[in-house]
This record gives sequence, structure tokens and C-alpha cells, in this order.
Amino acid sequence: MTHPLASSVEILAFDIFGTVVDWHGSIVREMAQHHPGVDGNAFALAWRAGYRPAMARVMSGELGWTLIDDLHRLILDGILPQFGLSHLGQAERAELNRVWHRLSPWPDSVEGLTRLKRKFTICTLSNGNIGLLTNMAKRAGLPWDCVLSAEVFRAYKPDPATYLGVARVFDLPAAKVMLVAAHHDDLAGARGCGLHTAYIERPLEFGAKQRKDVSPAPGNDLHCRDLIALANVLGA
Amino acid sequence: MTHPLASSVEILAFDIFGTVVDWHGSIVREMAQHHPGVDGNAFALAWRAGYRPAMARVMSGELGWTLIDDLHRLILDGILPQFGLSHLGQAERAELNRVWHRLSPWPDSVEGLTRLKRKFTICTLSNGNIGLLTNMAKRAGLPWDCVLSAEVFRAYKPDPATYLGVARVFDLPAAKVMLVAAHHDDLAGARGCGLHTAYIERPLEFGAKQRKDVSPAPGNDLHCRDLIALANVLGA
Repeated sequence: MTHPLASSVEILAFDIFGTVVDWHGSIVREMAQHHPGVDGNAFALAWRAGYRPAMARVMSGELGWTLIDDLHRLILDGILPQFGLSHLGQAERAELNRVWHRLSPWPDSVEGLTRLKRKFTICTLSNGNIGLLTNMAKRAGLPWDCVLSAEVFRAYKPDPATYLGVARVFDLPAAKVMLVAAHHDDLAGARGCGLHTAYIERPLEFGAKQRKDVSPAPGNDLHCRDLIALANVLGA
Repeated sequence: MTHPLASSVEILAFDIFGTVVDWHGSIVREMAQHHPGVDGNAFALAWRAGYRPAMARVMSGELGWTLIDDLHRLILDGILPQFGLSHLGQAERAELNRVWHRLSPWPDSVEGLTRLKRKFTICTLSNGNIGLLTNMAKRAGLPWDCVLSAEVFRAYKPDPATYLGVARVFDLPAAKVMLVAAHHDDLAGARGCGLHTAYIERPLEFGAKQRKDVSPAPGNDLHCRDLIALANVLGA
């Protein structure tokens, strides 16, 4: 049965890292291929763990506005020594850093998005920069109507400027926009701005060794296993 | 024979109004349908004629940063009296202003872009706002990889921040980007920033009564009849 929100929501804004694409698995696979001596699981987790502290340095004003590509590189340069990769040169580091442009979608993402696009305007709302998101979409076949990013709003999620920015871009009330994400804190930020929210379970986001708790949180309008389930519940 | 630039350019950035969509014909058709007593040709030309002066007021600092939707509305409110449409209420004016979201593509645009997208990253580079460009693309089937706009760069073309902004978004040298436009001044701005340029003939941009001179200008890398011809010359 189609959820009533299907007839009032117009824009679906998607978190990307973890929600639409599998950053952990993609990085593990690239490391296995190019640096087989490194523990890819630990490497992926260390790289991702630097993400929030790096954004916090920007949002506090310690660093000026910085694209995620550059934050990823800062973090990468910091963790290479502990994985025995200090010898990597500039070109190798740049190439490795671009793995974030090459992340693979979860198996349901392309089908789910393609169906949802028929009924809704679908856009990204990611802290990733526009170029990263566009390169990723082109490679993975993610059929966005529009690529929105922290770069457009000059603020990272969960800054309200990002959630409200989506509504403003489309000149719609916040209640016409639904954020789709695999992270409860992101959804809480959107909900606080009046957006609707859909939680997507991604139990393997951090790899099979660190299975994620995907329990429902109160307050989300929808709780779906994946993007095909979301398309089903929204009648798309 | 494929042009040598086909193997070095990576990003094609498209001007929209006049280059990809037919603003004059679309407005004339809407006026004929909803306000048949009005001279649609004169109305479309008057509306568009207010565009540059309105942007100039923003760029001079007289007006703060303003989306094109709002500039279109300012101009519309200004011209309604001279066309005997002062009686239109707020809702009717808002609906009429949205005609810019409903502009029809030229007959070659969807096929040309679809072919070019296979070989290049294709994006908009328009003074139109993101919501306008996204709504237009969804309705018309324009298959952008990414919607870039003056809104992203907080500057209107021909400000160098827009042309250089495209290169920066994709972290590429300006020479990897080609601007595709039906206006020589836009192309000159891009060329001045080191982008490559392709001129598209749109002799009917201002309607059949005001046929446009589509003579080549020196300096453009390519001069094509339409977007299918561009796909042909770029081997897409």
C-alpha cells in the first residue's frame, strides 16, 4: 500500500556515502587490488573516521571552506604512515584519493533511484563536492535530476542551511522535501528543519565485521530496508 | 571526421536559454493559449529585453544576490501594464513566471545531448537558477550529468567566476572544458578564461520576424548548426 506522503512530497534528497554507495566495500576492494599488504578494513575505517573531525575544523572556522576532496586528502596523508604507505608519491596519493569518486552503489540503488525518479525529483544532498558526486553518478549510473552538495550551500550537514537549502532551491516548503539517509543524526537534522525523513537500513555500511545497528528511531516517517523498498512504499 | 578537441576536452558546459531551449517560441505559445489578445512575440521580446539590465543591477550591487526566477518576476511585473495585463493576480503572475521552467528544447537538443553524454560529462552553465534548470530538464528530458548555475557561483555570466567555476568543480584545467552557446559574447567570456568554445546557430532564437545573424566569429573552436552537428563533429 502506498504511503500517504507519496502524494505530498515532491523532492527526494539522498545522503550518498553509506546510503546510496558502499564506501567501505569499495575502499576495501581497491586496497586489495593495489595495496594487498594493507588491512583494507582498518584502512577504510580510519579514513572515514577522520571525516567528522575534519569537517568540524572547517565549521569551527579553524580551516576555511574546504571541499571534501581536499579533506579526504588531508586525512589520507595523515593515516598513510600508520599503514606503512608513507612512500606513496603525490600522483599515487591523488589517484587513491579519487577512490571516493569511484564508490560502487549498493545493489538496489540504481533500480530504486530509477523507479523513484519517475514519480519524484531526485537529488543528492551530500557533504561530498559536486565534481565528486557527478563523477560517481556517471560511473555508477545514478540518475540524479540534480546534484546538490554542501558545496552549493557552503555548509556541511547537519547545518540547517543544507536541508533548508534544498527546499529553497526548489521554492517549496520544507514539508515537500524528504531526506533519505542511513544515518539517524542526519535525519534528525532534516526533521528539525521540517523535512520528512526516510531511514534506509545499511547494516554492512562499516563492513561485515562491524555490523551496524539498524533499529528504527522514533520520528522518521519511513523505515526501509533499501531503495527498492522505498520505491515500493512510495508507489514509484 | 572527428575534431581533435574531442580527445582532450572532458566537460561540455551548455548555455541554456536560446542554445538548448527555445524561450521565444515557448513564451509565444503560452501567451497564445492563455492570453490570446496579447502580441506574444512583442511580449516575449520585452520580457527577455529586461534580463540584462536586471542582472546588471545585481552585479553593480544595487540589488543583492537575486535568483533569475525573481528577476524574471520583477521584469514581468514591469511589463504587464504595457500589454494590458495589469489585472493579473499574484497566483496568475507566479504561474506565468514559471513559463521559464517549461521552455521547450529545440528539436535537436535531446538527441544531441544524449549522444554527447556518452562521451563527455555534460552540464548546464546558465544564469538560470538550479530549481528552474532542474524542473526544465525533467520536463523536457534533458539528460544533464550535473546542473551548474550562476546560483552555485554567486555570479552571472560573463563573470569569469562562472567559467572558471566549472573547471574548478571538476578539478580540471580550463582547457578541458568547452562552453557550448548560441551567443558570441558568452563564448568570448569563456575563451578569455581559457575554455574552448563551440558556437551553435540558433537563427530563430528571437522568432522568425527577428532572424538572428549566425555568422561565425573568429576565435571559436567550433561552429555548428545544432547539437546533433556538434555530436557529429565530436564523434559522439
